[in-house]
Amino acid sequence: MSDNLVARQGGRGPIVAIGGAEDKARERLILRRFVALAGGPDARIAIVPTASGIEDAGQHYKALFLDLGAASAEVAFVADRADAMEEATAQPLLGATGIFIGGGNQMRLATILGGTRFEAAIHARSAAGAVVGGTSAGASILSRHMVAFGASGNAPKLRMAQLAAGFGLLTEVIVDQHFRERDRIGRLLTMVALNPAQLGVGIDEDTAAIFHPDGQLEVLGRGTVMIVDGQRMTSDIALQTAHHPVNVTDIILHVLANGARFNLHSRRPLPLPLPKIRPTLAGLPLAADGESGQQ
Amino acid sequence: MSDNLVARQGGRGPIVAIGGAEDKARERLILRRFVALAGGPDARIAIVPTASGIEDAGQHYKALFLDLGAASAEVAFVADRADAMEEATAQPLLGATGIFIGGGNQMRLATILGGTRFEAAIHARSAAGAVVGGTSAGASILSRHMVAFGASGNAPKLRMAQLAAGFGLLTEVIVDQHFRERDRIGRLLTMVALNPAQLGVGIDEDTAAIFHPDGQLEVLGRGTVMIVDGQRMTSDIALQTAHHPVNVTDIILHVLANGARFNLHSRRPLPLPLPKIRPTLAGLPLAADGESGQQ
Repeated sequence: MSDNLVARQGGRGPIVAIGGAEDKARERLILRRFVALAGGPDARIAIVPTASGIEDAGQHYKALFLDLGAASAEVAFVADRADAMEEATAQPLLGATGIFIGGGNQMRLATILGGTRFEAAIHARSAAGAVVGGTSAGASILSRHMVAFGASGNAPKLRMAQLAAGFGLLTEVIVDQHFRERDRIGRLLTMVALNPAQLGVGIDEDTAAIFHPDGQLEVLGRGTVMIVDGQRMTSDIALQTAHHPVNVTDIILHVLANGARFNLHSRRPLPLPLPKIRPTLAGLPLAADGESGQQ
Repeated sequence: MSDNLVARQGGRGPIVAIGGAEDKARERLILRRFVALAGGPDARIAIVPTASGIEDAGQHYKALFLDLGAASAEVAFVADRADAMEEATAQPLLGATGIFIGGGNQMRLATILGGTRFEAAIHARSAAGAVVGGTSAGASILSRHMVAFGASGNAPKLRMAQLAAGFGLLTEVIVDQHFRERDRIGRLLTMVALNPAQLGVGIDEDTAAIFHPDGQLEVLGRGTVMIVDGQRMTSDIALQTAHHPVNVTDIILHVLANGARFNLHSRRPLPLPLPKIRPTLAGLPLAADGESGQQ
């Protein structure tokens, strides 16, 4: 792996957003990559189990990361908000080269850790080059504008998704997770429609979006990542009330599988393997964007 | 209604594709509109219940259409394929100003009626100006390239949707139905990715897409119509096998609610009510498509 801590030389670290239910028993592709990004045999990993209400949440990850070759793995337990303000509580984070935020309820993360010394320690490690990853609720909390809760379904509606402030390690991306499995495209479309400055990134289970420091998003895992780009969108969301359907036009969607990459600055996917499929549409004007395909 | 049979003066009639479960008890907005398109008090409606295996399917629609003011309503019963070849079987269609195809299994419609004299009679009436409508399976059959069956889910996969030849009253549109309720965006994306010449039209329950003879699609009802335009799409679908996820980029999506219209020739939605929402994206190039919004 060329993108480990050493190669980053102290710059901001990568962010790994996992859609939940990552493989923990077989290839463990995503967790293995997380350890590699944290330095492989030099990885010192801190696990943040706060999203879960179960006291020993995180112990399973500790065993997994050690089994995958990390030098150390420690669970950073936070009892409550007062605890999160104590310097001693953030101790396990201080030397960490990787911080892993487990699943559960992202509102536990936001309400217990939001604005605390503990959250500040996560940001400090990320700024110093550590990889920060999260699964399920732990993925959602990475966003500045975080999905707090919402309804499932294909079609956007005004009040189907509620936002809350997340940690903001990702400033311009709204992460949603368990994406395919819980039928969440409608709520992601809605969140992008609320303010198309935000890019929607919906991540399936056992799939990760790795946000590299150079501005590339890389897809890793069994499912897909759906990217919702609203920059050309028109909507009547400002005119609608309550749970009525909204009109949203010109959403640009990309569905990307393992190995695909997306440039977050240009909002363009990197070229896929050929062939490009170019339709012949009788009577329809097509963009003059190059030569015709030869299917 | 200005777009009734008289106004059309013998040209091709409108096509009404309904996403299933249209309201039959309260406002009956969609069925009422169907009667209006068929001529209102002069409407002579033939009901095709063949998608259903239940013998008296169609009787409920007969009562409904009469209650909504149609001059006549008759169920056109077809026992089997041999029956569909008989001239007498198509008798109820001959004077019809509206033909309504009920729900059930579209493969019953395709296997029993496909290529028969009965199907030819439907085309003849449509060409003469009659409105042809269908709900659920009866909506799918309207397409030339029809969804036969498929899996649910957000993300496109190669073999998640199977196509079969439909009646082809809509030649360049693949209709899918129960769209939001049965989580069918993945299979519609897949069908469009197979050949982006086809426009995907996913219709929610109690919602209709009315295809007017002038090339406009109008949305009517409680839910939304999702339009999937693949004309700028790139995909690696030709490289994939079996049920693996596929990469599909640059899908253009429109989600349209009651009253919205879409021009099928230009593949552009007609302007929505203002305000347009224009994002301010730091560092992102935006299309130079007019003045800035004033939010």
